[in-house]
Amino acid sequence: MKRTSFDLMNCSLARTLEIVGEWWTLLIIREALWGTQRFDDFHRRLGIARNILTARLKRLEDHGVMVRLGGGGYGLTDKGRALFPAVAALMQWGDDWIHAESGPPILLYDKATDLSLQRIDLRTVAGEVLPPSQVGIRAGPGATLRTRRRADSAQG
Amino acid sequence: MKRTSFDLMNCSLARTLEIVGEWWTLLIIREALWGTQRFDDFHRRLGIARNILTARLKRLEDHGVMVRLGGGGYGLTDKGRALFPAVAALMQWGDDWIHAESGPPILLYDKATDLSLQRIDLRTVAGEVLPPSQVGIRAGPGATLRTRRRADSAQG
Repeated sequence: MKRTSFDLMNCSLARTLEIVGEWWTLLIIREALWGTQRFDDFHRRLGIARNILTARLKRLEDHGVMVRLGGGGYGLTDKGRALFPAVAALMQWGDDWIHAESGPPILLYDKATDLSLQRIDLRTVAGEVLPPSQVGIRAGPGATLRTRRRADSAQG
Repeated sequence: MKRTSFDLMNCSLARTLEIVGEWWTLLIIREALWGTQRFDDFHRRLGIARNILTARLKRLEDHGVMVRLGGGGYGLTDKGRALFPAVAALMQWGDDWIHAESGPPILLYDKATDLSLQRIDLRTVAGEVLPPSQVGIRAGPGATLRTRRRADSAQG
């Protein structure tokens, strides 16, 4: 099913996709973010086959993204909940480019104030929104020589 | 290879994953965001088999995410470039949870000011960072009855 392991790639996106880059996996995490805990509820709400669900949950457990709860359900760890911004950014893209006519099926809000959330954009440390074309890449402290060369030759 | 089409799901995340939720696809988009255009460069830099690369590029073209350039290469459309925040959010998660010890392989910066980018977080419209546990969901204008019921029963 899989062709190459991304484990050896010096790239945080590749390593992340190795864990969560499968259709169902991010939907399971979405359901868990929405509060689902019981196996049967994941099964029913996602329409996912039981054997696939079992395998995906096992993998998320192995990677410390989800944890088995006392009552027999599954919950997100801090590592799992930390995927919420990425889930929200992918949802927003679907809202913008796939559900543009009907409008978003789901809206996120702040439970404390009932206010909507800010759009997820690339911003400077000062908070200014940047268009994608204005964002450059450079090698970070974890870059291998190959990544460093790649970053130096990127975009120009 | 695929089990269920997500096309009929009333969920912007599911519909997005239907297009980009495959290991290689988001890495191809990453490479394109970093400036790669030529088929051979995608092939070499990602280590992706030619037949898979061809199929993925075709799919991205069909969905208006990438476009064939005059010179024979491939470029991102506005729809494609709009995936940058989602790519950055997934990268950030990998930086935080997989490359925490070594540090990020790649850093993003503002080409105009050379400044680093802000972290991608969930924020209120006022710009305040929200922890994932404080974010609720509710039905939006594009919600079907089923989604509306799901949102009403979420989280509590």
